[in-house]
Amino acid sequence: MSDSHIVSSFDDELDGLRSAISRMGGLVEAQLANSIQAIAKRDDALATQCVEADKAIDDLEDQVEALTLRMLALRQPVAHDLRQILSALKISHDLERMGDYATNVAKRASALSQLPEVGPINGIARMGRLTHRIITDVLDAYTQRDVERAMVAWQRDEEIDQMYTSLFRELLTYMMEDPRNITACAHLLFVAKNIERIGDHATNIAETVYFEETGRRLEGNRPKGDNSSFAVVKPEELSEESS
Amino acid sequence: MSDSHIVSSFDDELDGLRSAISRMGGLVEAQLANSIQAIAKRDDALATQCVEADKAIDDLEDQVEALTLRMLALRQPVAHDLRQILSALKISHDLERMGDYATNVAKRASALSQLPEVGPINGIARMGRLTHRIITDVLDAYTQRDVERAMVAWQRDEEIDQMYTSLFRELLTYMMEDPRNITACAHLLFVAKNIERIGDHATNIAETVYFEETGRRLEGNRPKGDNSSFAVVKPEELSEESS
Repeated sequence: MSDSHIVSSFDDELDGLRSAISRMGGLVEAQLANSIQAIAKRDDALATQCVEADKAIDDLEDQVEALTLRMLALRQPVAHDLRQILSALKISHDLERMGDYATNVAKRASALSQLPEVGPINGIARMGRLTHRIITDVLDAYTQRDVERAMVAWQRDEEIDQMYTSLFRELLTYMMEDPRNITACAHLLFVAKNIERIGDHATNIAETVYFEETGRRLEGNRPKGDNSSFAVVKPEELSEESS
Repeated sequence: MSDSHIVSSFDDELDGLRSAISRMGGLVEAQLANSIQAIAKRDDALATQCVEADKAIDDLEDQVEALTLRMLALRQPVAHDLRQILSALKISHDLERMGDYATNVAKRASALSQLPEVGPINGIARMGRLTHRIITDVLDAYTQRDVERAMVAWQRDEEIDQMYTSLFRELLTYMMEDPRNITACAHLLFVAKNIERIGDHATNIAETVYFEETGRRLEGNRPKGDNSSFAVVKPEELSEESS
């Protein structure tokens, strides 16, 4: 009787932990969508709202950390139970970082709204939508403990990387065409980079789901499509193209 | 007798954990110094060496993770022992990220060496030296369990942020002066951002040292000097300045 009580209460704590992660995930999804909308629509009020909303994500991370520390100390779990607790801790760190990156996107809205509009904003919005879908998939995979679904999302991060590399080149071209585009494009370079990093953290979550459920580390390197660190774009090429 | 044997063996494991963290820290310090030297001296061979060296940091993170998992499962530690184990896990994640950021700096060496040299490279090297000092300080604070020293380093991150904001503006100005500077300056924007992020992770480590030793979370927000997300630089201002 007393044993079953202890077991059920541990399960309740695990449920609480998993639902805290789900709530964090929902907030991060909203944060990404709103921050991209804020810069696309030049909506300063929405941007301010995003910056304030980040605190709720940080608070949930603190709650998850306190809860896992308590569970580790009092329950002394092993095997799959231990992996579930450590996975929640790890995922909460990833989600907190994703929230920070989304917030940094929103922070750039005020600078962008003082500058001329530039074309690649549509590419940014597209990249944001893809990243949003991947986040939804990894969070569903976590909730449903669905390793296969996590792996599909993990593979798709390559598409975000490719979009980022192509946006990087496009933004440099806009800068070279007209110096008045430079500051807006520099901010958009960081917006694109932030979204790409959010995608990286989503793949971390996919890897954690795999580890939690299988007890094994994912072998092999994830396919990567970000070659922007090696990109060289020169104004001469630009004038050759337009001539 | 058997009790003291168990205790001493747990202490040995903790020592092993702490020394793995110290080795990771040393590798990250070297990685940052070498990657900045690679871009400053346009040294492709050194850059390649940095990219390869990142694997050793990743491997150490895996070792720390496996060791902490084992210690949590078999030792079921509480209080300060538990905090030490979780802190090592957390610090290893921060160091792994710092290694990644440094590696990304090195990756840009090949693009930069194909482009005209630009002035702000000295500012980057200065920012790198300050960040290196702060990393050394937080790692010493961790080794010596010196909360006060951790807090001094934590405060100094503001200087890195301020250097970053000023470099951000300077790089945009260089871009506006001559479109041939744009690609090199875009890469240097990310180099500066990567160094600034390395500084952020160093402050995370300082916070973890505080938590490990005191059992309390650091209250209050860290002073921040990075206002670059709000920066607006316009070519008109540039021509006003030079006229």
